[in-house]
Amino acid sequence: MKAAVWHGYKDIRIEEVKEPSPKPGQVKIKVDWAGICGTDRHEYEGPNFIPVKKPHRLTGRVAPLTIGHEFSGEIVELGEGVEGWNVGDKVTANGSLTCGVCEACRSGRYNICQKLGFLGVGDDGAFADYVVVEAAKLFAIPEGVSQRHAAVAEPLACGIHATNLLGDIKGKDVVVIGPGIIGLSAFLGAKYAGAGRILVSGIGDYRKELIEKYGGTYVDASKTDLESFVQQWSDGRLADVVYECIGAEQTLDQAIRISKPGAKLMIMGVFGKKPVIDMNTLQEAERVLYTSQAHVNEIATALEYMKEGKINADELITREVTLDTLVDDGFEYLIQHGPENIKVLIRIGEK
Amino acid sequence: MKAAVWHGYKDIRIEEVKEPSPKPGQVKIKVDWAGICGTDRHEYEGPNFIPVKKPHRLTGRVAPLTIGHEFSGEIVELGEGVEGWNVGDKVTANGSLTCGVCEACRSGRYNICQKLGFLGVGDDGAFADYVVVEAAKLFAIPEGVSQRHAAVAEPLACGIHATNLLGDIKGKDVVVIGPGIIGLSAFLGAKYAGAGRILVSGIGDYRKELIEKYGGTYVDASKTDLESFVQQWSDGRLADVVYECIGAEQTLDQAIRISKPGAKLMIMGVFGKKPVIDMNTLQEAERVLYTSQAHVNEIATALEYMKEGKINADELITREVTLDTLVDDGFEYLIQHGPENIKVLIRIGEK
Ligand SMILES: [Zn+2]
Ligand SMILES: [Zn+2]
Ligand SMILES: [Zn+2]
Ligand SMILES: [Zn+2]
Repeated sequence: MKAAVWHGYKDIRIEEVKEPSPKPGQVKIKVDWAGICGTDRHEYEGPNFIPVKKPHRLTGRVAPLTIGHEFSGEIVELGEGVEGWNVGDKVTANGSLTCGVCEACRSGRYNICQKLGFLGVGDDGAFADYVVVEAAKLFAIPEGVSQRHAAVAEPLACGIHATNLLGDIKGKDVVVIGPGIIGLSAFLGAKYAGAGRILVSGIGDYRKELIEKYGGTYVDASKTDLESFVQQWSDGRLADVVYECIGAEQTLDQAIRISKPGAKLMIMGVFGKKPVIDMNTLQEAERVLYTSQAHVNEIATALEYMKEGKINADELITREVTLDTLVDDGFEYLIQHGPENIKVLIRIGEK
Repeated sequence: MKAAVWHGYKDIRIEEVKEPSPKPGQVKIKVDWAGICGTDRHEYEGPNFIPVKKPHRLTGRVAPLTIGHEFSGEIVELGEGVEGWNVGDKVTANGSLTCGVCEACRSGRYNICQKLGFLGVGDDGAFADYVVVEAAKLFAIPEGVSQRHAAVAEPLACGIHATNLLGDIKGKDVVVIGPGIIGLSAFLGAKYAGAGRILVSGIGDYRKELIEKYGGTYVDASKTDLESFVQQWSDGRLADVVYECIGAEQTLDQAIRISKPGAKLMIMGVFGKKPVIDMNTLQEAERVLYTSQAHVNEIATALEYMKEGKINADELITREVTLDTLVDDGFEYLIQHGPENIKVLIRIGEK
């Protein structure tokens, strides 16, 4: 079969590899669509998480490895002991690789498994004709949701999960810093969790229309000072909840300063460099800093939102490539045109 | 009357000043005992919070100002409209100065008032023969608790408050980094909130006996590597809850590394310098960073613990001075002999 295999920085090769076979408890899936995630881009550009020398702590794998974890597909083979699923079922999956026995796994929070790995990082992933996945991590794609849309459920689950961690945010004033797919997932997660007003801050006006369509307020932080804007917008009360979806010291600082006493901050951005944090300001008003790691069962919620028409995934899919054009039209294009793109999909099995 | 008046760094003068008079809603208290807080030491050594040029945001006051906020005393005069209190009542108080109208104040979280001030920082404090306090911030000293002990209720309330913010910690493995009075208040707060095992880390063995007496485990981090110790102590599971009570980058880092996936970190230390934070490690396992600011009604709980014999304040009082000896025997002594001391009391009205 054809697969996008990671060999090193900027060295992803589209190769013929052996089809994977489901182990007990796993299923084999024919991949219809896959999505390029920010983490995939990191693997391409570096710094990478795919183990090169030291074997992966859970799977023991090292590169070369097929990348990708966001996908939709159809079950073509059941491994030993798999129940509740049938060949032909349309599915998507949580791509986490987990030990199953640690305290986090046993309490249902397998997304923070002590040995956590991810498809495409710790084992062969979904940018291929076939992928194998644990049956326990599958989600059925509901009637009325296309395979193409279902491939976007995974990133949306991130924002829904983060929002669930925050507890009740009904009626709260929310600010999302950074309108990439993760920021958008936070925006939509907060919206459908019943948040009050939601302000999204970004650079440029790529997301203005989309945010406004979903009832949010967009501010172009390259033209407007976010802090003064939030002061005005909130009548001096500042924000109840701030999602930081960039991963930079400056936006972390901003997040702290635009949040009211007792506010909840949710860190979703991935920090390339350890930031300096204004701990005194955080502390003087008992602000709480939450962090979020992927998701657990929130793909089901994302699919449900699509089925109910609450989210139209078409608005999030900004580009399509194939495995053959993945490198030049996918990764390289994203490096040049990052901010304009939300989600780039790879058309694989669906013709 | 006699008062310890702050004029500048290392310039606290014991002076004769005018007795304060209670405004409507306030009471005048004859001070029996007062306690030197870490924040008082900061005022003495710098950097100070007492406004020097720019008037205080709530009170409009600038230095010179009488310092101190931890005290016990007896009501000697009621301001206009004060109900529920009588001359002769033995009391202690929450020293916060609050606006009463902001969102935090109105929701009962006046400790994070938008214009928060503190006795001895934003207005004349308790290191004096008399102090005036809002009646709404008073706590009656219960029968069976001495005035001397009651003066220690305020710092103990800090750890109880922080613990309350964490929610249910019953049976949890807790680590407290830093065994000063704030660390001890966290230790005792966690203990009586039903925590499981509690480990306290400090430098030297000043606190070993005390911690063990209250059922905790003490580790001298100058001799034992805290991380390896926690690994062993927790059988590789790490801590559920970590209180950072130092305020340093190194111990913040330690706190993150010794905490298990999904752990709660409580920042109580005051950072003299903005720390660099290992956000990736915090995030990869959904650790949550809580912060705590003083307390609200937890002085009542602290007094209750004393009354029930759960806390013997004698064990926390390591030195006594008078107003006349406050500077040399109090502040200067603490600078030389900090770690050996827990709470230094000033004997004022009780002879
Ligand atoms: Zn992803
Ligand atoms: Zn696990
Ligand atoms: Zn204090
Ligand atoms: Zn207020």
